[in-house]
Amino acid sequence: MTKPTRILGLDPGYGRLGYGVIEGSIALGFGVITTSKDRTVGERLAEIAADIRTILAKYQPDVVSIEALFFSKSVTTALKVAEVRGVLLLLAEEHGATVVEVKPNEVKLAMTGYGKADKKQMTEMVRTVFKLKAGPKIDDAADALAIAWTALNRRV
Amino acid sequence: MTKPTRILGLDPGYGRLGYGVIEGSIALGFGVITTSKDRTVGERLAEIAADIRTILAKYQPDVVSIEALFFSKSVTTALKVAEVRGVLLLLAEEHGATVVEVKPNEVKLAMTGYGKADKKQMTEMVRTVFKLKAGPKIDDAADALAIAWTALNRRV
Repeated sequence: MTKPTRILGLDPGYGRLGYGVIEGSIALGFGVITTSKDRTVGERLAEIAADIRTILAKYQPDVVSIEALFFSKSVTTALKVAEVRGVLLLLAEEHGATVVEVKPNEVKLAMTGYGKADKKQMTEMVRTVFKLKAGPKIDDAADALAIAWTALNRRV
Repeated sequence: MTKPTRILGLDPGYGRLGYGVIEGSIALGFGVITTSKDRTVGERLAEIAADIRTILAKYQPDVVSIEALFFSKSVTTALKVAEVRGVLLLLAEEHGATVVEVKPNEVKLAMTGYGKADKKQMTEMVRTVFKLKAGPKIDDAADALAIAWTALNRRV
């Protein structure tokens, strides 16, 4: 048997950054990295980078799946998210992982079969696929697990 | 006499990233970091990060001045530039430098006294202020030197 691919899914953001690590339909770990608005942008990026490096070292993912840029909210928000994305892309590359970029509608399609699924439906499917109990922790990390799942299914 | 503030100015971009290091009106070093479109986004960010870390180690700037986001071109371009900006902000923070963000019109105003100065006028003033000869190298790095100059004058 070949070693299963381990995938880290990342849902980028300054205030809340979701992460989820999967092997097939097993969720090995997931959670959310938060940073405070009271810190400078540089401090927040450094905090995020330190936490991501810890997660990469702990889980040693083969693949890092990151949500691609989108414009559904404000351009200002998208530009801030892009700064975080740049840092995540750098850290994934420096870790030696294969980087996969997935689009929001692709994630919804992979997880629910419907490209415009809402947050509730997404969370339900993530819980079902990974056999997880309901709770605030899964609400924060559901998108990240779905982003990892999308990369897995693209590779099959 | 107090030690003069050493400032690294950065003009972010994937394909061409200008840098310039100043102390007062002395340009200690300047140039451009280029990456190829043939490489992945992760590879390009890793190349940029390696070069920036070398520049930070060599010049040990007290302040890193980075151009803030703007939308004069396409949103897609702005989002890519934001990814690079995120990496630069992280590296400046991890180096322990004070990060200053300057706006494009502020840079033009500081360098030429006119907030809508064109590229030619900017390059001329950079050459005059820093007593530099004309040439392709200064063309690439003129904006970065102006970005550093803006941070210096804001601090006065």
